[in-house]
Amino acid sequence: MKEQLWKNILLLKEKSPLIHNITNYVVMNNTANALLASGASPVMAHAQAEVENMCSIAQAVVINIGTLDEYWVESMLKTARVAQQNKIPWVLDPVGAGATTYRNKVLSELLALSPQVIRGNASEIIALATQNTSTKGVDSTAESNQAIAAAKQLVKMYACTVCISGATDIIINESTQIQLDNGDPIMEKVTGMGCTASALTAAFCGITSNYFIATTTAMALLGVAGSLAAKKSQGPGSFQVHLLDVLYTITEKEFINNLQLTTYE
Amino acid sequence: MKEQLWKNILLLKEKSPLIHNITNYVVMNNTANALLASGASPVMAHAQAEVENMCSIAQAVVINIGTLDEYWVESMLKTARVAQQNKIPWVLDPVGAGATTYRNKVLSELLALSPQVIRGNASEIIALATQNTSTKGVDSTAESNQAIAAAKQLVKMYACTVCISGATDIIINESTQIQLDNGDPIMEKVTGMGCTASALTAAFCGITSNYFIATTTAMALLGVAGSLAAKKSQGPGSFQVHLLDVLYTITEKEFINNLQLTTYE
Amino acid sequence: MKEQLWKNILLLKEKSPLIHNITNYVVMNNTANALLASGASPVMAHAQAEVENMCSIAQAVVINIGTLDEYWVESMLKTARVAQQNKIPWVLDPVGAGATTYRNKVLSELLALSPQVIRGNASEIIALATQNTSTKGVDSTAESNQAIAAAKQLVKMYACTVCISGATDIIINESTQIQLDNGDPIMEKVTGMGCTASALTAAFCGITSNYFIATTTAMALLGVAGSLAAKKSQGPGSFQVHLLDVLYTITEKEFINNLQLTTYE
Repeated sequence: MKEQLWKNILLLKEKSPLIHNITNYVVMNNTANALLASGASPVMAHAQAEVENMCSIAQAVVINIGTLDEYWVESMLKTARVAQQNKIPWVLDPVGAGATTYRNKVLSELLALSPQVIRGNASEIIALATQNTSTKGVDSTAESNQAIAAAKQLVKMYACTVCISGATDIIINESTQIQLDNGDPIMEKVTGMGCTASALTAAFCGITSNYFIATTTAMALLGVAGSLAAKKSQGPGSFQVHLLDVLYTITEKEFINNLQLTTYE
Repeated sequence: MKEQLWKNILLLKEKSPLIHNITNYVVMNNTANALLASGASPVMAHAQAEVENMCSIAQAVVINIGTLDEYWVESMLKTARVAQQNKIPWVLDPVGAGATTYRNKVLSELLALSPQVIRGNASEIIALATQNTSTKGVDSTAESNQAIAAAKQLVKMYACTVCISGATDIIINESTQIQLDNGDPIMEKVTGMGCTASALTAAFCGITSNYFIATTTAMALLGVAGSLAAKKSQGPGSFQVHLLDVLYTITEKEFINNLQLTTYE
Repeated sequence: MKEQLWKNILLLKEKSPLIHNITNYVVMNNTANALLASGASPVMAHAQAEVENMCSIAQAVVINIGTLDEYWVESMLKTARVAQQNKIPWVLDPVGAGATTYRNKVLSELLALSPQVIRGNASEIIALATQNTSTKGVDSTAESNQAIAAAKQLVKMYACTVCISGATDIIINESTQIQLDNGDPIMEKVTGMGCTASALTAAFCGITSNYFIATTTAMALLGVAGSLAAKKSQGPGSFQVHLLDVLYTITEKEFINNLQLTTYE
């Protein structure tokens, strides 16, 4: 398994898939830079007059509702429809699910358009599955393992891969569950780590049709890179700098030796 | 006084208030990261369909008009109204006040909704008080002490705390004036330092109902952290990295020993 | 020539022109910081209610279509019209030209408003000249010298300076062609380097009416600063930090000694 993930990491640099991002204002720069550092080619485009055009030339799409509004939601729906029609894989990042009724409404419309992967923190995954609206803004108030039942429900309802990210990352599909124990607590003190995870997930969905493994590759890469970067850092500022450096320079040995991965079938 | 400010800094990390930001595109990432590094929990949301919902679960709000447009202005007004009704403190950052007639018009509408704190540079504070339109873009062309009369006028007109930030920060309410001489000239060569100051002000307003002291805490923290970060920096790039690190790691001793604060009653 | 470019670099710090940016969400922060580090005073403003007002107080303008939409396009057109009427120089950055039919349509409307400079990568310059729609997102798939004929065509059609940026930068007007061989491959792994180049071009257009030399100064500064920053970097994260530091601290000796410039008349 670990070797398979590393092969995907090399394949991303080789194929450099075009990833169409409709994401939030806060993280656009970081997301684009994480994609570039990892080998993908990002494009951000949201105009209703061009999203269908842009989506159709992409190898994968990520839709992140972090700073949604009525115009952007329409663009997201248009894009997801084209992705669905053209069998281009798309990843849903349900930022702040449960924080407002508007987010919940938009998310149910997006879910109907069959994302291949959903990645959120535990609070978001629980809110998605239960339509519960008790989350606090965009930060999680639950642990990943508390969201497993909710994630399994989403897998069944939408026939997709679900990733619960946090101190522990859990990736679930119909038959398998993988747990990753990488990363570092400093990652909670940097905005957009989850958004970067979703974008990297889309990147790997752009080079393999096994979306469960694509998601696992993305989370493993970000987790290991995060733990390596944290060791060199004095705080959340230097962490971000080192993270991009490590995503760009990580070696097979660093990746394989540091990866904490458990598979449950 | 210094000990009181330090207690607030600790309290922010303990309480981690949810801060609703309606701010400009240029600084969203920095603002979110500065809030996280200091211990607050930021959320950015501007959709007219959800701002009232989001604002009502926040402990404080910051409204920053840096990259305003007609849609966002409506969202700002909706949010400020909910904040006012629910007695949630809100901070106004009048970026570019005086640069265009549109900004002046929007600012007068926002001021009517009773912000607890106004924080701007000297040019902006003067423009706000005099409706003068002679500022140069978003950078100040005046020194903080030149704006004291204007700030006092705003305090009287809107019954709020006013902070003039710059090489010297001056915080004014009806009875007291505090002057802070911290920071470093490099901070003028980094975009969004004022925006970060406003967001941190909102964060501290989320943990104490003494908004004058909350504002002083924010400015003192950013100023001391800025001067510590500048000492380690080779320019505005490394400064930004160190600033986030210092906001995260600053100790009581570093804070108290470096803080230059003068109170006038 | 090299001394003339250095004098412009000093003049930028002395005059600190106000540069009005209508640019994309991904790079706004980097662009503002690169302008500040180099000595200019950036303002970002896009509201239809204020762009004419803001543009008219600026010394130069940059319009970058990276994350365009219908509202922003209207703002771009309004701004370009005011710039044209008031003889304020403006720079066009045709991000993603050729990627969608919408971008091509918008670009033809903008080109009709006579930018003083067009700066794009080779794919974008070719797409602009030929209305060809075969580019891959926003990254170039061609080398700079493959776009020379297209650039010459644009120079003739729009009586402007054209800059093709990439591993080699080529600046072309009606009589002269300058080639710059600076920079570093890491710059392709950081988002928005081209956008920064366009913004710096606008900055130098704000201090000299020789827009060909202004463009050359911007590209030379960014290229030399990029190669110096790359030497100190471990990847695209630290590169960005060092780049801002070098833009702020670069000396005459560093600039002159490292600059690789060839003129063809």
